[in-house]
Amino acid sequence: MNTTRSLTDENRARLRGVSTATLTTALFKRGLRNVCIQGVLPVNPAAARMVGEAFTLRYIPAREDLDTMSVFTDRSHPQRRGIEEIPAGYVMVVDSRKDPRAASAGGILITRMKMRGVAGIVTDGGFRDTPDLRSLDFPCYAARPSAPTNLIHHHAVDLNVPIACGDLAVYPGDIVVGDAEGVVVIPAHLANETAEEAAAMTLFEDWVDARVRDGRSTFGLYPPDESTRAEFEAWQANSSN
Amino acid sequence: MNTTRSLTDENRARLRGVSTATLTTALFKRGLRNVCIQGVLPVNPAAARMVGEAFTLRYIPAREDLDTMSVFTDRSHPQRRGIEEIPAGYVMVVDSRKDPRAASAGGILITRMKMRGVAGIVTDGGFRDTPDLRSLDFPCYAARPSAPTNLIHHHAVDLNVPIACGDLAVYPGDIVVGDAEGVVVIPAHLANETAEEAAAMTLFEDWVDARVRDGRSTFGLYPPDESTRAEFEAWQANSSN
Amino acid sequence: MNTTRSLTDENRARLRGVSTATLTTALFKRGLRNVCIQGVLPVNPAAARMVGEAFTLRYIPAREDLDTMSVFTDRSHPQRRGIEEIPAGYVMVVDSRKDPRAASAGGILITRMKMRGVAGIVTDGGFRDTPDLRSLDFPCYAARPSAPTNLIHHHAVDLNVPIACGDLAVYPGDIVVGDAEGVVVIPAHLANETAEEAAAMTLFEDWVDARVRDGRSTFGLYPPDESTRAEFEAWQANSSN
Amino acid sequence: MNTTRSLTDENRARLRGVSTATLTTALFKRGLRNVCIQGVLPVNPAAARMVGEAFTLRYIPAREDLDTMSVFTDRSHPQRRGIEEIPAGYVMVVDSRKDPRAASAGGILITRMKMRGVAGIVTDGGFRDTPDLRSLDFPCYAARPSAPTNLIHHHAVDLNVPIACGDLAVYPGDIVVGDAEGVVVIPAHLANETAEEAAAMTLFEDWVDARVRDGRSTFGLYPPDESTRAEFEAWQANSSN
Amino acid sequence: MNTTRSLTDENRARLRGVSTATLTTALFKRGLRNVCIQGVLPVNPAAARMVGEAFTLRYIPAREDLDTMSVFTDRSHPQRRGIEEIPAGYVMVVDSRKDPRAASAGGILITRMKMRGVAGIVTDGGFRDTPDLRSLDFPCYAARPSAPTNLIHHHAVDLNVPIACGDLAVYPGDIVVGDAEGVVVIPAHLANETAEEAAAMTLFEDWVDARVRDGRSTFGLYPPDESTRAEFEAWQANSSN
Amino acid sequence: MNTTRSLTDENRARLRGVSTATLTTALFKRGLRNVCIQGVLPVNPAAARMVGEAFTLRYIPAREDLDTMSVFTDRSHPQRRGIEEIPAGYVMVVDSRKDPRAASAGGILITRMKMRGVAGIVTDGGFRDTPDLRSLDFPCYAARPSAPTNLIHHHAVDLNVPIACGDLAVYPGDIVVGDAEGVVVIPAHLANETAEEAAAMTLFEDWVDARVRDGRSTFGLYPPDESTRAEFEAWQANSSN
Repeated sequence: MNTTRSLTDENRARLRGVSTATLTTALFKRGLRNVCIQGVLPVNPAAARMVGEAFTLRYIPAREDLDTMSVFTDRSHPQRRGIEEIPAGYVMVVDSRKDPRAASAGGILITRMKMRGVAGIVTDGGFRDTPDLRSLDFPCYAARPSAPTNLIHHHAVDLNVPIACGDLAVYPGDIVVGDAEGVVVIPAHLANETAEEAAAMTLFEDWVDARVRDGRSTFGLYPPDESTRAEFEAWQANSSN
Repeated sequence: MNTTRSLTDENRARLRGVSTATLTTALFKRGLRNVCIQGVLPVNPAAARMVGEAFTLRYIPAREDLDTMSVFTDRSHPQRRGIEEIPAGYVMVVDSRKDPRAASAGGILITRMKMRGVAGIVTDGGFRDTPDLRSLDFPCYAARPSAPTNLIHHHAVDLNVPIACGDLAVYPGDIVVGDAEGVVVIPAHLANETAEEAAAMTLFEDWVDARVRDGRSTFGLYPPDESTRAEFEAWQANSSN
Repeated sequence: MNTTRSLTDENRARLRGVSTATLTTALFKRGLRNVCIQGVLPVNPAAARMVGEAFTLRYIPAREDLDTMSVFTDRSHPQRRGIEEIPAGYVMVVDSRKDPRAASAGGILITRMKMRGVAGIVTDGGFRDTPDLRSLDFPCYAARPSAPTNLIHHHAVDLNVPIACGDLAVYPGDIVVGDAEGVVVIPAHLANETAEEAAAMTLFEDWVDARVRDGRSTFGLYPPDESTRAEFEAWQANSSN
Repeated sequence: MNTTRSLTDENRARLRGVSTATLTTALFKRGLRNVCIQGVLPVNPAAARMVGEAFTLRYIPAREDLDTMSVFTDRSHPQRRGIEEIPAGYVMVVDSRKDPRAASAGGILITRMKMRGVAGIVTDGGFRDTPDLRSLDFPCYAARPSAPTNLIHHHAVDLNVPIACGDLAVYPGDIVVGDAEGVVVIPAHLANETAEEAAAMTLFEDWVDARVRDGRSTFGLYPPDESTRAEFEAWQANSSN
Repeated sequence: MNTTRSLTDENRARLRGVSTATLTTALFKRGLRNVCIQGVLPVNPAAARMVGEAFTLRYIPAREDLDTMSVFTDRSHPQRRGIEEIPAGYVMVVDSRKDPRAASAGGILITRMKMRGVAGIVTDGGFRDTPDLRSLDFPCYAARPSAPTNLIHHHAVDLNVPIACGDLAVYPGDIVVGDAEGVVVIPAHLANETAEEAAAMTLFEDWVDARVRDGRSTFGLYPPDESTRAEFEAWQANSSN
Repeated sequence: MNTTRSLTDENRARLRGVSTATLTTALFKRGLRNVCIQGVLPVNPAAARMVGEAFTLRYIPAREDLDTMSVFTDRSHPQRRGIEEIPAGYVMVVDSRKDPRAASAGGILITRMKMRGVAGIVTDGGFRDTPDLRSLDFPCYAARPSAPTNLIHHHAVDLNVPIACGDLAVYPGDIVVGDAEGVVVIPAHLANETAEEAAAMTLFEDWVDARVRDGRSTFGLYPPDESTRAEFEAWQANSSN
């Protein structure tokens, strides 16, 4: 796989400081409406700040004669191989066909990814061992907890191909950002500019939020009119001194 | 809009002290089966005690040529106007067609409503900025968090018309009550009598609950037979002395 | 009903110490894929450790002329009778046809079951009074909170017949196990052997988890190859000294 | 089972001549809103005119160790027994938990029911062998075709108990009426009066329909005002001469 | 209401000769992705060729105290008024919140619309009396048949406001086009140019279809390369002689 | 791709003469429960007799910057390439993630496949131009008609990889069989034995059906007891003379 990482360290840091909500707006301005992995929640909201390149795992439905306990002894099994091969700093994104009736992964494998420096994991299905995951300092996003082992409904079929996850296309290398609200995926070629714009938007929105808490009306403030824009720029010039 | 408020202050206070569960029973006795906004949860359960008149906002699906970022600069945009016009003490109820793929509102607008003295907000879609909303002392109810800005899937079309929210009809001026369980809507003309009955039921149910915790059987107790009724009345007479 | 309880005390204790995730694997090895009540969550995760025989309650949809407030005065009403008849140590499992629009049970009845020594309650519908249930030290599992009284959508029709709950067949006397993740149902005749295997698996998986936290690869470890198996057995022999 | 049939022959004949649409209105006037088996369609619309008492079959989900091909050799298997025991003139109504992933019944069993004089069959799941059923002169209603044999997802558990079918309560002995639109279930004690009212309504609505085809406005006609009512009565008096 | 009709007669005729599939492509070229009323089918495919301006009817959920049989005697009831007021040549589009559990309209009212010269009716809910509608020469589109009268689940609330229908925004005056496949809605200001482009596309696609039936590869043909384009233009020049 | 075809001509012919219902039973006897593409119907039931090897096409969700009209000019576009490359006698099976909001294919491409000798096409999404497909003598299966062009919601990503279709795993080379009821997929290595068993079962079931039409009970007949088995064998011996 191509592991050239075009997102700069500075912008990677910026993405850790912006919300997924702000990112959807920055991407909407670039013509992208569908940028959010729909229907997933953080298992451990306190750990939910995730930025990394997408490394994908694709499941298809299980078939009784193929998906037996013995498959896990094979080191080329895509799920098991993926856990050991995903580069540090990447996010594993799993296409589970929005089927949470069996788990996409569980405590031991996810702990292994954490130990390897992986940035997080997202599935549009479920995780097992969620009581353990809730206290693991590692970002995990799923539709819901799901105790059954993945073989019961899922067959891991390949790694690092473009997939669907939560009704969103995810391409390997896309930048995956998660917070306590959910997960947004930024096409790789837009990552740097989006990070910069979102960071600027966040500064402005924090300033707006403070004004609103002071009792100011949103009219003319959000979105800003000429005068608000000038006021913000003055404040910004001031505060950066 | 007609802002005559027929709910008395005393009954408004009573509604703050009863559960939505008790209210559904009081309304069922009046022939109403469908009184609950289905499928919404409090974003911040600790803040979830809400009573107020309904002020409605209606969304239809977005259309790409109409729903662009520029619409928010227009002060007559129904969502933005609603935020600034809803009277203090009212609850904003949003018809999002049970579509949580984009937000119905977010942190800044909801903070503005809190500052204006609004009583709460309910949508059958989603909210963005929920990590902030979780620590805001303001009752917010939604189907789930949703990062994308509302324009992506929603077009705000009018204010204060009868709407559907969570499969329930909501008329402007109906009394909206929320607790940590969910949201019930009381038709305006039934609000005073329902508040009174629910308060009386709550007294009785609290007494029953204490009896059950003492180990008593529910037979004859809940619902009460003649003898239990007499016992409760005696207790009540006693305790109000 | 037959209350012969074939699960030994030792295995009952073992089931309190294993996860529902591990149980699904032990049952999958016995050819059972469908063992999990799908789509339910613990109301109070801190209280979510439940083991007991299934005692079932079946609902069908309500009919307006039959399901009126007066039915609860009848002591033979299945829901009310079930609350008072379920043996201590059993789990009430409710077939609500996956319809959470009205409650399957509420605070007073559930508190009564707790007082009677019942082990827990599961519904594939909803519970009312969930704000109270969240602080009750009693395992309750449901699809979601639901304020409306059960009569609005449900009619209790019989007790202790085989039912569907969360797309799973549940037979009276099956062993129902719940943790903070969900609920698994073990066919009665497999309960002892499953408990034993799951306890052994848990010992091994805890040991694996510790190895993974030490930085070891999952290859050869999970599932174990010959050498790992020998290593674990040596560790086990050692630690039981 | 109680096979006393309180529906008179005359009213049985009337029910063959009215639409399910008209029946829902007659029942709504009696306070019943939920009278239609939701989500089922006739397999063979040309054969879709069905009237008979409900004889019910209840399925729960299959379990791999119980639901094997050998179960059908047992003459007490509820599905097989039901086929041979349902009285002539009755309608088999099947609770398949709205799960059409496996069939509720197929061509051979349904042909047997036809030969035995059964009035029809309804399931909220699916039928197999629908290409054959489409040319069988026998009313069959299902959610959709479904090739897999019932054992794959269904376990027949009992006969002639109250069930859910398409979100509706169905009690053994209720009167089940089907036409090319769908299926309505009339509580047994209301069957005669409902048949009479529906027949009268049908006469009036046919007269209205003819007036509308002549170009008349619906205002004052449907529903009728005093003058229309008089006109209809005159017409009726005339035409019965 | 504004009944200025900007669609020319020529383009109205063109829209009768193009498919809804072709229209979605013509609109996609103009940046519109969401132009199809999702999930509706023609009741009578043989009659399914519909073109007309949208006249909308909006339903919210019924409430037991408001939605009683007596409401239909009121000539200002929106459903009844709409039937008599919709201009000839228009299409009634009904927002039923995708709820087909009760009918949006039935045989008598729809026959009245046909007599008045209305162009068709679309609902994202259901129709009753569909056995009659199947033989009525009038375009009707719905999610499915539904016997229950609308009052059971629907409350007609207003006419000719922007609505949602099948997840699509529909504005009064938009051009609604239906064929045997489904329904597309063209924003009013794009109707003439879309009709022209779709007619041209149809000519080309019919020519392509004939080539494909002759055994030609789709490569270079569909979409056309330079040489194919020239060939088509030559054919077109020829055939218009 | 490997185009070795292990299904014998004789068994291919047998599969044309058995129902999908019978095939599910033959496969269930081999331990396979999940063999049916769920939720698809034939567009043209009269043409619905399809047997062929699976050739797969996989879609992921569209992304606005990638999925523009210009992609179709690229001959390596997987959908367009697949149409021209699928071998005669094969069935195209499309993974559309059960999303019928945009078409998976339309009239021109499907006609091209017919001209090339392809055996049929199945999608768990929708087809456009279904009014044309309904009169095309070519087996097409889909969830429903869908006018919008595939780019609006789908991005064709690869050919001939294992996919999900209608909740079923489909591997390239599996044998896909369709009739007027639906579609069953037979793992390649089981195709010959399944064809043989299904043909034998069909002979028996046709004989049973004739007996049932003569008025015989299903007890002892279906499934057959010893005596019925002997009777059938005698009949078979006789009729093959």
